[in-house]
This record gives sequence, structure tokens and C-alpha cells, in this order.
Amino acid sequence: MRFELQFRNQEELPLQASSESFRIERDTFGELRVPSDKYYGAQTVRSTMNFKIGGATERMPIQVIKAFGILKKAAAEVNKDYGLDPKIADAIIKAADEVAAGKLDDHFPLVVWQTGSGTQTNMNVNEVISNRAIEILGGKLGSKDPVHPNDHVNKSQSSNDTFPTAMHIAAAAEVHQVLLPGLQTLHDALAAKAEQFRDIIKIGRTHTQDAVPLSLGQEFGGYVQQVKYSIERVKASMPHVYELAAGGTAVGTGLNTRIGFAEKVADKVAALTGLPFITAANKFEALAAHDALVELSGSLNTVAVSMMKIANDIRFLGSGPRSGLGELILPENEPGSSIMPGKVNPTQCEAMTMVAAQVMGNHVAVTVGGSNGHFELNVFKPMIIKNVLNSARLLGDASVSFTNNCVVGIEVNTERINKLMNESLMLVTALNPHIGYDKAATIAKTAHKEGLTLKATAVKLGYLTEEQFEQWVRPQDMLGPK
Amino acid sequence: MRFELQFRNQEELPLQASSESFRIERDTFGELRVPSDKYYGAQTVRSTMNFKIGGATERMPIQVIKAFGILKKAAAEVNKDYGLDPKIADAIIKAADEVAAGKLDDHFPLVVWQTGSGTQTNMNVNEVISNRAIEILGGKLGSKDPVHPNDHVNKSQSSNDTFPTAMHIAAAAEVHQVLLPGLQTLHDALAAKAEQFRDIIKIGRTHTQDAVPLSLGQEFGGYVQQVKYSIERVKASMPHVYELAAGGTAVGTGLNTRIGFAEKVADKVAALTGLPFITAANKFEALAAHDALVELSGSLNTVAVSMMKIANDIRFLGSGPRSGLGELILPENEPGSSIMPGKVNPTQCEAMTMVAAQVMGNHVAVTVGGSNGHFELNVFKPMIIKNVLNSARLLGDASVSFTNNCVVGIEVNTERINKLMNESLMLVTALNPHIGYDKAATIAKTAHKEGLTLKATAVKLGYLTEEQFEQWVRPQDMLGPK
Amino acid sequence: MRFELQFRNQEELPLQASSESFRIERDTFGELRVPSDKYYGAQTVRSTMNFKIGGATERMPIQVIKAFGILKKAAAEVNKDYGLDPKIADAIIKAADEVAAGKLDDHFPLVVWQTGSGTQTNMNVNEVISNRAIEILGGKLGSKDPVHPNDHVNKSQSSNDTFPTAMHIAAAAEVHQVLLPGLQTLHDALAAKAEQFRDIIKIGRTHTQDAVPLSLGQEFGGYVQQVKYSIERVKASMPHVYELAAGGTAVGTGLNTRIGFAEKVADKVAALTGLPFITAANKFEALAAHDALVELSGSLNTVAVSMMKIANDIRFLGSGPRSGLGELILPENEPGSSIMPGKVNPTQCEAMTMVAAQVMGNHVAVTVGGSNGHFELNVFKPMIIKNVLNSARLLGDASVSFTNNCVVGIEVNTERINKLMNESLMLVTALNPHIGYDKAATIAKTAHKEGLTLKATAVKLGYLTEEQFEQWVRPQDMLGPK
Amino acid sequence: MRFELQFRNQEELPLQASSESFRIERDTFGELRVPSDKYYGAQTVRSTMNFKIGGATERMPIQVIKAFGILKKAAAEVNKDYGLDPKIADAIIKAADEVAAGKLDDHFPLVVWQTGSGTQTNMNVNEVISNRAIEILGGKLGSKDPVHPNDHVNKSQSSNDTFPTAMHIAAAAEVHQVLLPGLQTLHDALAAKAEQFRDIIKIGRTHTQDAVPLSLGQEFGGYVQQVKYSIERVKASMPHVYELAAGGTAVGTGLNTRIGFAEKVADKVAALTGLPFITAANKFEALAAHDALVELSGSLNTVAVSMMKIANDIRFLGSGPRSGLGELILPENEPGSSIMPGKVNPTQCEAMTMVAAQVMGNHVAVTVGGSNGHFELNVFKPMIIKNVLNSARLLGDASVSFTNNCVVGIEVNTERINKLMNESLMLVTALNPHIGYDKAATIAKTAHKEGLTLKATAVKLGYLTEEQFEQWVRPQDMLGPK
Repeated sequence: MRFELQFRNQEELPLQASSESFRIERDTFGELRVPSDKYYGAQTVRSTMNFKIGGATERMPIQVIKAFGILKKAAAEVNKDYGLDPKIADAIIKAADEVAAGKLDDHFPLVVWQTGSGTQTNMNVNEVISNRAIEILGGKLGSKDPVHPNDHVNKSQSSNDTFPTAMHIAAAAEVHQVLLPGLQTLHDALAAKAEQFRDIIKIGRTHTQDAVPLSLGQEFGGYVQQVKYSIERVKASMPHVYELAAGGTAVGTGLNTRIGFAEKVADKVAALTGLPFITAANKFEALAAHDALVELSGSLNTVAVSMMKIANDIRFLGSGPRSGLGELILPENEPGSSIMPGKVNPTQCEAMTMVAAQVMGNHVAVTVGGSNGHFELNVFKPMIIKNVLNSARLLGDASVSFTNNCVVGIEVNTERINKLMNESLMLVTALNPHIGYDKAATIAKTAHKEGLTLKATAVKLGYLTEEQFEQWVRPQDMLGPK
Repeated sequence: MRFELQFRNQEELPLQASSESFRIERDTFGELRVPSDKYYGAQTVRSTMNFKIGGATERMPIQVIKAFGILKKAAAEVNKDYGLDPKIADAIIKAADEVAAGKLDDHFPLVVWQTGSGTQTNMNVNEVISNRAIEILGGKLGSKDPVHPNDHVNKSQSSNDTFPTAMHIAAAAEVHQVLLPGLQTLHDALAAKAEQFRDIIKIGRTHTQDAVPLSLGQEFGGYVQQVKYSIERVKASMPHVYELAAGGTAVGTGLNTRIGFAEKVADKVAALTGLPFITAANKFEALAAHDALVELSGSLNTVAVSMMKIANDIRFLGSGPRSGLGELILPENEPGSSIMPGKVNPTQCEAMTMVAAQVMGNHVAVTVGGSNGHFELNVFKPMIIKNVLNSARLLGDASVSFTNNCVVGIEVNTERINKLMNESLMLVTALNPHIGYDKAATIAKTAHKEGLTLKATAVKLGYLTEEQFEQWVRPQDMLGPK
Repeated sequence: MRFELQFRNQEELPLQASSESFRIERDTFGELRVPSDKYYGAQTVRSTMNFKIGGATERMPIQVIKAFGILKKAAAEVNKDYGLDPKIADAIIKAADEVAAGKLDDHFPLVVWQTGSGTQTNMNVNEVISNRAIEILGGKLGSKDPVHPNDHVNKSQSSNDTFPTAMHIAAAAEVHQVLLPGLQTLHDALAAKAEQFRDIIKIGRTHTQDAVPLSLGQEFGGYVQQVKYSIERVKASMPHVYELAAGGTAVGTGLNTRIGFAEKVADKVAALTGLPFITAANKFEALAAHDALVELSGSLNTVAVSMMKIANDIRFLGSGPRSGLGELILPENEPGSSIMPGKVNPTQCEAMTMVAAQVMGNHVAVTVGGSNGHFELNVFKPMIIKNVLNSARLLGDASVSFTNNCVVGIEVNTERINKLMNESLMLVTALNPHIGYDKAATIAKTAHKEGLTLKATAVKLGYLTEEQFEQWVRPQDMLGPK
Repeated sequence: MRFELQFRNQEELPLQASSESFRIERDTFGELRVPSDKYYGAQTVRSTMNFKIGGATERMPIQVIKAFGILKKAAAEVNKDYGLDPKIADAIIKAADEVAAGKLDDHFPLVVWQTGSGTQTNMNVNEVISNRAIEILGGKLGSKDPVHPNDHVNKSQSSNDTFPTAMHIAAAAEVHQVLLPGLQTLHDALAAKAEQFRDIIKIGRTHTQDAVPLSLGQEFGGYVQQVKYSIERVKASMPHVYELAAGGTAVGTGLNTRIGFAEKVADKVAALTGLPFITAANKFEALAAHDALVELSGSLNTVAVSMMKIANDIRFLGSGPRSGLGELILPENEPGSSIMPGKVNPTQCEAMTMVAAQVMGNHVAVTVGGSNGHFELNVFKPMIIKNVLNSARLLGDASVSFTNNCVVGIEVNTERINKLMNESLMLVTALNPHIGYDKAATIAKTAHKEGLTLKATAVKLGYLTEEQFEQWVRPQDMLGPK
């Protein structure tokens, strides 16, 4: 089959070293060419050769790399306390700081689709930090001297405990830096609107059909509650995320660590991040399962459900301008049709609902991965953290975008709201105590059949006067219990 | 914690034998009391003791039991050809016929949540057929003489090949008896409506916002196409379902069967059902995986997606009566609010969309189960078939209910459709060739700002006459390419 | 297409009245025949005619009906306080008690696939309670006198607030009566095993490959932690479930209720159930969304993930008897192959993992339903509660079944565990400090290549004596930090 | 809360223009600064300001951009036929070719999370092509002269029909260029292994427990069948993907197109790609729903299910080296533990199973998005195509990686296979015809209890001679029907 279209360009294969100058490194499998300008080493290069899956967009999320920077720094500090040569420790700490600060992002080429333990990313980090530390100490890249990637950078650690530790640090930071602030922004904007709309009385809709009235403030108050609970839900699912696997090493026993290492590392990470990390109560669970992230993903899924509801409502309430519900006027953010000035597409609602769908999908991926661990190690780790971070960031970012570009600018089409309100047949309910159920029903039925207002019908039927109607049918009295 | 509310009543535990009279049977584990009035035996009773999970609603779908009736009959016929004592074979065939006809439904108490191979249901069937055959031949229930559940009823079979065979028979029959007729019913009703609505021109909606016009017939034509393709999709996913595992026995090798047995059984089943069953091309795949049912479930998922779209559209187009879109008038099937004559809740749309959500969930259960087979046997069989059958039946039944109680009775609110149509600002598009883009835009913007019609605005602005407007702005000319 | 097989029997259509004697009732649509021996009325019968979807297994979960019994009792008590005729109130309370006690289960024929607000089930309950109350008071069934289904039984209520209230009561009760006790049972059994297995040292497995040792108690300790956290997760997701919508009536405003009604009803329900129900903080959210149940479903999904891991591990650790891992001996619950005494199929693990897959699927259905609410009412209510209840019950029941029929009977194949342990090449790690990395590596490589034990190889290579090996290579010293 | 860790660097916000030199463009909202070195214009810049969601990894997949290149070229060719100024048309064609060839990738900065119709990406393409065409013709960037983005590049098109057309082109190309070749590669490698392993007889495993034997070739033959059917499934779901929406314009009517335009564009696209694209049978369905892509995603989901099974089996069969099943020897691709030479982690299996989980999640996202279209337009388009493309690429790439780095290098541990085989108690089945069931069972039970071989036990019990055992118990005779 012939294709003029060639989708798979060279430039889409980011894993191939772009340098023209190389140094030779070797591992137990033989020699490998490592780009001269890169801090990573043979194991990283070998992984790029073995896992050509998915291209640049599939790289290990940079948040995981930065979290590794934090962890390696914390571990080096604790190892220093336990006797690691201070010169080496300090160089590792400095290099790890650079990783955490994002200064070495170009040195982490590996994709998510590698070994399910994330071992190769742990080694990528070890290689980069050791080479950068060697450089700091005036040594030669690739020499492993005086800073060895395994013996020093990975000291008292194993991929099996460092990768889940980095997963939790990254997830917690993303939640605190992006998701929760984003949700709070949305919450506050919706709450302000609910207050602003407190006295605007409108028709309610159940089954998408006309129902008894409520205030627009009450309607938005429901959204506020959903976002408030979203924040609570996310926070409530964090305690197990704060538990760090560090100190469990290969299978959770803590073999080759010192008593106290696990606790000290957790304390350091907590100090470095300002988040209440603690050492995991049970390291076996922390390596073999990722229930904590499945739980967090479940909360993100619930947040997505709330967002879908809110964004859907707002786009329908803002539909029109002539042939929709038309109660809200959404801000116009980009040129609509050049000829249709009133056509404001609810693009922010669309971005939000797409994000919601994605988060629901991500959650299933996390669920499947979380359920398929075996024995002492779950090997769906990179996939799980990729999806959790993606969900958290998308929800957080979309909340801010939705707030700034939609919610804060929502205006009310009061005329339309009042018109729909006053035309509503459901207001007849208020007449029951005065003229009895049968006459009220007759009014409603007649009004519906003849396309008249309730008032006109009531007066026409002679059941009451216009003054009585206005006195008795008061939507503002229908907004709460008596 | 105290509960006045006691949810778990005795009567909810259907698995306990209700009879007061018992016979004693024994298996290798010891003696068991079997209700005198039941054909099942010790293995069935033991399973009811070991798997108290979920209660009566979680019973093995009766369709699987009936499919087993077909299979056991087919196997007995082939075994007879290969030398099984005709007296025994004929008694088995007669008993199997009764199972297939649903006459012995009360004798299958087991739940889905048993062994993942469905072995206990296969044994339940073997026990019931052997005992019923024994009875036919004048023997004593539980004696295994002259018809042995294993040696005769299960001859040349294993749970490992019979259960997947019954799964495929049941799925195919449900698709042909319930799902496809249901979808066809819906298709035909929608097609009739599309034809009926051919000349009703209405405003289109994109992004839920007003857009250029189309005919209501065109809009319904989109639904017709979705249902037409739904039928195609389901049919396209049947070929692998028609492949039967029978003849694979324990691991797919066909050990203990005769050459030709597999093909002959498939032929018999095809003859008995009128469906094009064949023997599976690869028995190892047919036991170890259920990709064919995952594929079918994927088609049902796509059908659900189509149904969600159609039912959502119809409920929104029928929303109102005063404050919604109000273009369609949906049939009123049950008393709405006693005081709100116009309030017709789109209950059939609601049932359909709930079914759609369920099918999407069922599909994930099937996917997870299908992906977790190990080695020579997938052991999520009962769960998989339960969900596939549930999806097929719900979609089929809901299609008929939705058709009969909603689609066929849909009427059009022509006045409303025309009003929205004529008020639409999008019609201004038609003026571009006559007065130029700038003036057309000014008309639209002014009309939107002042809340006027296009025509009134155009005349007011002096750009054209009322006659010209009516001549140039003709929605009926906007429904296709030129 | 011809089918001998006829799946859809008459007897599968349970919704058709089976009685031969009828009374005539009428609603606004005309006359209907209601079976004389049933308490339900015209609206229930009409629903059975309009929603022939799915058959008997698809009935509204009986837990919802019983929860309605609680709610209707509580509402009648509060209405009595507010002035409802005590004679009527007391009859309603008595009838509601019978509903809650499961004495009238046969009078609730409706399926889940009805209106998405559950209105018809609310009316079914109203009809049954009013007719039973009428009977108690000596009146005539169907007369609505002296107890009217709407005016008295449904007083100060709407389907829109009663159905979500019943959903929450049912979910909370199922969680407390079935799920949490089930999980606790499993937790305790696993904890006892972890203690029992504390000193059994075995090989660890990461990536499904041999790794350094841990104790079997540590391995089971990981499972214990998962179940402990499962219980915590479920409990942590209950607070919003304890919030009741009662008092919100049609759209959440509480129209037609008295101030204090909502709080009093919640108090009554709390008293009746012993669970800490409160009135919902925001009734609009409580009607329009079901985030609380999506959240609970998310916790059930996480529990399912844990269960899948545990059951998978146990079946693999128990695989064999000769060609698997063979470390555990699982109890034999049913006759295995009649010729293969050692073949114990891990049927309880299979039931559990099927349940886990189902719960994951149910969760997606709940998610989709939860996300698709519109305006003041989510209309996926019956589907949502069906799935939540199903997940809770299946997990609870399966936990008990898995515990009683598998976990408590697990024995250890100590000989096998020791053999694998002593043959493991990973123990060579312990020699590093004594003979150096290079010699240790040579021992391991040679042992692997020649198929020898580490000890034999070490001695053969002359690196150390047998005594030294036994002194230095001690798995019991590899189980924790130093 | 304080964070040393700052995840959200400036450099992670790729949407901000990086240039230091700008040109001023204006749209109806005012002036905007456009980077001088970029071909895109004001609408693209505005979108980067309005949708700061997710960062660089969330960009619109480049395959969609390239597909747009194809489409815009095809449309320009047809427009030229219909009278578009050949000079303009040819410049558009040349620019579109560059887009399709990936030469202008840097000019498409927009993310997936924009308007759900993809309008802004359509405009991005229009802007880039028009500016590049202007440059080709010697004009000034941003002048819209002589090539206008809307009037010329988008002629006879609308975002509503172009975006779904690009979705289908991109999906079909990815399937044909990446997925199907990848699956074929895997199929052929597995088929070669099945042939190579044809005569290796091994123990079968059902319920993860020992069962009767089969050949390793038969076992791999099951995998071959799964992959063969995977290819068939994907192909079977392509016909509706080949249907192109082009020509439907805004709502599907084809307003502002010429009769024949739709067909001609489809023909051109078919010619350009070598794929059998046709114009969609129903344009309304093609805009309002994406059932075709949901269907394709369903097939990808089934492929993922197959891959999960195969990769799981291979990693378990290769588990060990001492304490696992150990029948297969998987290639060692990267340094294992430096001290554990035999420890080969099945990293390719892990990458594959992570991909499978991701595809299952992506499928749910596609399902949710597909089900939520409203009226004339589904507005989850960018999210849907992102997930479909991701699934196709991951499965295709992972298949190649898994093949090259695992399957082709699989070797057999014949000694281990024979040992497990010969130790198996299930072989006793073969003695039934010779010594009867009872004696055979006694042999098996005794062998299991005493840990002996069947042969030793049989001889010891005196039931038969060693010669007889070897004559009668022949696994090679148990591999098929007789």
C-alpha cells in the first residue's frame, strides 16, 4: 500500500541521540555510544534502543523526574548522616537539586513504556546525578568515579522503592500545586456567582422538563457544593499518598538499609516539599500495590463527574442565542462565525467536558494497572503515575481556564429568565390552597392547550381576579420550606 | 451497630434448598442432602454451600442453561453416532430438550460467582439431565444408573469446552432473538419518522448553539444511520462468536474425543438453532481467551453510544413544554404531575440512557475479565457471559420499549419549529451574495442587540425590502449543496 | 431464521400480572386491571406495561424498597408531629414497617429500567403502603380512602427527594450490613495467617522473577494492609452518603415542606437505622448529582483492585501441585478431577476475581450515569443504585466466601518453600561483604550455568568452606534493615 | 504551603510564543502579537491564550495536522476544478504538501483541550497554509492576500466537516502505517515460534493448575490465532472509518458546497493516501456522532485484551530462573541485577501489558466522548482522536518492540519442560483403559501423598511393570482426538 502521507518522520523519534559527538560507555552487554553532551549513561541509552514505543509525547512525566530529584537529595542527606563521604554526598545533593529544579530536563529521554518497575528511569536519574556530581567534583563523565550511580546515588535504595516514592511525591505535588488551587479558583468564582445570582428567580428543570422555580443562586449553589466536595474528596484521598515506600528496597524488607533510614528519608522529603509525607506503614503493600493512587484516581474520577455536570448545565443554560434556553450569556472568547454575532460557542465547557471524559478513561487504565500486580511488585508503575498526573493536571488547568474564560464572565439574560418564569405552567401549584386542586388543574390544562398564560387563563375562566393571581402566585415564595 | 432495618432476609438466600424432604447423595467429600424434588445432585448442592455470593438475582443466566440443553442434545446425538447406547442417548436427548425448552429452570440454582470455568454449572446440567434421563428410563434419582452424569451426559466433553460453547450459543441466540429484532424495530420506526419529517425545516444546532437550518427528516436520518450501522456492527462481530469450542475438551487438544466429533457437534448445534455455528478454528484460543465475546461486547458498547446520542437528542428536542426547546412532542405514557398537564417526562429516553450507561460498564467488566486469562483457560467465563447477555437483552428490550412507547408517537410542534427557524439570526448567511458581507453582518449584529427579527432589522436599516428578504432568505434552499 | 431454542419464555416475563382475579383501577389515562391480591395500584401496573426491559433479574433492588419503608415511616412520624391525622399516620407507619421488614416484597414488580428519577418506584411504594394502611383501617383497596398514596404517604415529599434518600439509606445499610463485616472477616483471617506464617522464610518475587527473601508472614502482611485500608477507604467515603435529600422535594427548594421537616426526617432515619444520617447540606446538589455514590463506588473499585491482587497472588502461590509455584496448599472444597487428587482448583480466588472485574465495570456504569445529570435532577438514579448495591454486596459476600472456603484453610508446603528458598541464586547477595562482589558474581553465574546450588558452587570454586557459607548466607538475616 | 519543588516551570508552558520579534495581527477582538517566524495567525494565538491546559505533551497529535495537510490539498484541487484561481490553488496545494510532509510541525502549537469541534486547529491549519502560500506567492504574512485562510484555504469547508475528515484520515493512516504492520510482525514471529515448538510436549495448565499435556507449539498457536484475529478485527472495523465527512460543512447539509464536491474530495484523499476512502453515506451522522471511531477503539480494546493475555502468559512461563515456572527462557535485554545473572526481568511483557491497560482506559474515554454528542455536532472530537491515535500507535509500536526484543529470542528450557511433564500426575489418565479407573486413581493419590512419580508409584503398587507404564503413558498420544 502506497502512502504519500508519511506519518512517522525521523523527527518523531526523539529517543535517538541527536548529538554528533559521542563517548563510549560499556555495560555488561558491551559498548554503547553515549552523546557527549548528555549526563545519562549506558543503561539509559540501552533503554532507548529497547523501547521505541510512542515517541516524545510518551516520555516519563517530568514531574516524576523532579520528584526523583527531591528523593535522591533526601536519600543523600540521610546517607551522609549514616556515614557517606560528605564530599560525595554534597555533590549528589547539588546535582539532585538541579534535577528537582528542572535544569537537567533534557537528560531524561526515556518513555513511560519501559519496564513496569520504572527501573530504567531510576537508573537514568542515578546516571545523570552521578555524572553531574562527577562533573561538579572535576571528574570525567562516564567514569563512575568518584560518584557511582549505584553505590552512591542509589545507596540504600532500589528501583522498587524509589520509583513508588517518586510516584507519590509527584502525585502529591501535582495535587497541591495544580489541582487543588485550580479547584479552589473555580469554587470561589462559582460561589461569587451564586451570591450575585441570589435573587434571580427562574424556572427549575427536572427530566429536562419545566418544573417549579428556584433561584439562579440556588442553582449555582449546587455547583459550588459539588466543587467544595471535590476539594474535600481529593484531600480525603491524600493520606495514603503521603506514605512513602522509601526504605523498603527490593521486596519491602528494607534489606541493605539501616534501621531508621526509611523514617529519616520521609522526614527529609516532607521538609523539602512542605507536604506531610511519612514512611509507609507497610512497605510490602507499598511496593506490591498502588491502591493509594487508585484511590486518588477514584477521587479525580468523581471530580470529573462533577465537572461534566457543571459544564454541561452551563452550556445548555447558555444555549441560543435564539433557539436555546438562553438564560445565561457566556463570555465570547474567540471570533465566532464572522456573520453570526450572537453565536458564542461554549468552548470552555467543551474543553472541560473533554477533560472529564479523559479523566474517566485514565481512571480505568489506573484501575486495570493497579489490579494486575503480582507478588512483591506491581509492574504497571510508569503507566499508573502517568495517568494520575495527567488527570490531576488536566482537571486543575481546565478549572482555571474554565473559571477565567467562562465562569467569571457569565452574565444573565434577565429578560429571558423572567419570561420563561412567568410563562411557566408550574406556578399554578401556588393556587391550590386558594381555589382548590380541581380548578387549578383546569387552569393549567386550559393554558397549555390554548397556549395562554396562567394568569390570562385564570381570569378568563373567572376563577379569580388579576389582582388575586398576582397576590397568590409569587415565585419568590416558592423557594424554600415554610 | 443496631439495625431495625434487616436487609438480609432468609428469603433472600435462594440457594438453600427449600424442600422439606431430602435424599442422601454422596460425593468424594462425604454425604449431602439433596432435595427430593430436584434433579440436581451432590456437586450442585455443594456449590450452593461454597458460593453464597449475591443471591437470586445473581443466578447463572437461564440462557446459558438453555444453551447447555442444546449442546448436550447435540453431543448425545453425535455420541450416539459414535456408539453410545441409543437408549441412553435418546433419554439424554429428551431430557436435554426439556432443559432447552425451559421446563427444568427450577433445577439450576447456582450463581455466576462460582468457579471461573463454569464447571459447577456444567455439572449441574449433567446432574439434571442424567437424573431426568434416569427418571425417563424408570431408574432411581441419584443412582447415576443407567445414565451417568460424567460418563454419558458429559461424554467427550469437559467443562472447559462445554461452557464456552454454551456461552457462544447463548450469546448468538440472544443477539438474534432479542437484540437484532429490537434494533430493527427501532430502525424502522426512526426511518418512518425521518420520511414523515422530510419537509419540516428547522434550525440546526452545533455546540448546542443556533446554527444553519436542516430538515427534521435529515436530523432523524442521522439517527437512522446510527441504528443501521448498529445492526451492521453487531452482525460484523458475530463470525467469531459462531465458532464453538466443543471438541477441545480439557486444554484444547481434544483428548478423549474422536476425530470429527468437534465438527459434528457444531453441525448439530447449527441445525438445532438455525445459526451458522462452526467448530472453532483453534480450540486453544477458544478455551484460553474470550476475545470473540470481548469483540461482541465492543459492538454492544458502540450501540450503547449511539443510543445515548439518540435518546439524549430526543429528550432535549422534546424539552419544555414552555421553557425548553420544545420542537418535538413526546408521547405521554404515564400520569405526569397531577397539576402540570404539559409536563411529559421523557421516561423512555431515561430508561434507554440508563441502559446505555449499564452496557458501557458491562463492557469494562468483560474487558477486564477477558484480559485476565492464564495459560490454557480463561476463568472469568460466567462473569463474561452474564454481562454480554445482559447488554444484549437490555439494548434489545429497551429498543423495543423506546420505539413503541416513544418514537412511534413523536409529534412535531410545527409552530415552535417555525418560530425558532424564522427568528434565527443564522439565516442572514443567505444575504451575503446580495448585499455583501458587511451589511449582512450589520443586520445580524443589530438584530441580536435589539432583539429584533432579521427581516425587521434589514428593512429598518433600509438595506432591502420585505419582499426582497422573503425572496432571498429561504431556508428550504439551504439544505444541500448546489 | 428458525430457532428450536426459544429463549424468551412466557415465564421470563415476570412483570405481567399472574393473578386470575382483578380489581379495576383508573388513573388519568383510563382503566387498568390490578391483580386483586396485590397492594400496588394503577401507576405500578402502567409502568409494567411501559417498561418491558430485562425481566425479573432486573427488578429494583429489594434493598431500595426496604429503605423506602424506613423513609416512609420516618416521614409519617414527622408528618404526625406536624399535624397529620394520627390514625392515618399510624397505619402508614405500620405498613411501612412491613415494607422495611420485607413482608411485602412480592408487591414491588418494577424494574430498574424505568424513569430515571425512580418516580414509579416511589409511587409503587406509595400505592402499596396506602393500600395496606387502608386494609389495616378496614377500608377498600384502591379506594385511596382513608389513606391517599400522594396526599398522605408521600406528604411533604417528592420522588425527586425520596428516591435519592432511599438510595443513600440502602447503600449505607448494605455497606454496614454486608460489605464492612465481610471485609473485616477477611482482614482478621488474613491477619491470623500473617501471624501464623511469621517465621516462614521464602523467596520473594519481583517482575514475577526470583528476588531476595521475605517471610510468608510479611507477604500476607501486605494483604492484611490492603484489606485494612479497604475498610478505611469505604468508611472514608461514607460521610456524604449519610447526607439525605429528604426535604428537598421537587427541585431542592423544599417547596411544600415545613421548616425543620428535612432535619427531623434525617433524625428519624438515623434513629431507625442506627447510622449517622443527617440532612444534606445542599439539597440542590443532592438531587441533581450523585457524586456521593460515585465516590463510594470509587472506593468499592479500589477495594476490587485490592481483592484482585490478593486473590491472584494466592492462586499463583497455590498453583501446582507439581508444575506451579506450589508454596501454598489451598483447601479442596469440591471434587476436583476424579482422577487427579492433587488438582485443587482455586475456585474461591476465581469467584473473587470475577467479582472484582464486575465491580470495576459497575463503577464505570455509575461514573457515566453520575456525569450525565442535567439541571435540577440526575435521571440515572435506579441504574446508579443498582450498581452500587451490587458492588457492595458482591464484595462483601465474596469476602466471606473467600475467607471461609479458602483463607482460613490455607496451609503451607514448607518443604517446597524451603527448597525454592535454598536453591535461590539471590542469596549470594549475602556473600558480598565477605568475599567481594566479583567472586560472589562468579559463584552466581556459575551456579546458574551449571544448575548447581550456590553452596556447592562456592565450595567447588574454592572461595569458601561449607561452614562459612552456612554462617554467612542466612536468609533470616535478610528480612529487615540492620 | 511552601514548595522547594516547583513543578510548573516556565519552560513547561510551551504555548507562549518564544520569539522575541512579533508582527501585529488583529481579529474582531482586537490586536494580537504573532511571532514573526510563525505562519500561524491571530486565531491560533488567541487559542493559546484561552486554553492553557496541560502543556506540550497535550498538543493536537501531529498526525491530525498532517491529515489536514492531505485534506486541504485535496480540497484545493477540487476547488480548482470548480473554478478557484489556479495560482492560489497551486500555492495552497504546495503549502498543504509541506504540512502533510511534516515540514511545518512547529507552527501548530494548539492543545487538544480546546473547542470540542477542533475549530481552532482547523483555523490554525488555514492560517499556516494561507501564510505559507502567501509567502510562496511573494506576499506579506498576515495580510490574508492573495490567499485568504477562510475564503480560499477553507473554501467549501467548515471546521465541522474538516475536523472529522482529518480524524478519519489520521486514524486510518495510523492503523495502516503503524498498527497493522506491528501486529503482522508479531503474528509472524509467534507463528514461527509455534512451528519451531511444534514437537515440544509440555504440561497444560488450567485454573493455573496442572492439567493434561499439550505441545508448546499448540500453546503458541493459540497466541498466533489471537493475533491473527486481532488483525481481522481491526480491518473489520475500518469500513466506516473510510467514510469522510468532507462536504457536509456546518451541519451536514453541504450548504455552500457544490454538488459533487464531497465525492471528489473523498476520491482525491483516497488517491493521495492509497486508502479506500469514500464520502460518508450520511453527513449528519458523520458530524454528530463518532461511532466509527468508537467502533475502531472497541477493536483496539479487543487487541489490548489479546496482548494482555499473551504477554502475561509469556512472563509467567518464563518466570524463575529457579522459583518460577521456568519453561521459557526470555532474552536478556538489559543488565539485570549486577549480582543475579539469571534474573531476566520480562520488561517487554511489562511494557506490553502497560500499553494494554492504557488502551482499555483510552477506550473508555472514547466511549464517554462518543456518547455525549448533542444535536448536529459531537464536540469531543479532539479528545476522541487523541485517544484512538494513541491506542493504535502504542499497540503497533509495542508489538514491534515485543517481537524484536522478546518473542524472536525466546528459547525453551527443555529440561525443565520435560521434568514438569514427566512428574505430572495428570498423565495417569492414560492408564484408565488398561487398569481401570480405581487403580489409576489409587496410583495418583499415592504418588501425590508420597511425593513420588507415577511410574515409581505404579510399579511399587504392583499394578503394572515399568515397561508397561512407558508403553501406555505416552504424552505424545494425548495431543489430539483419536
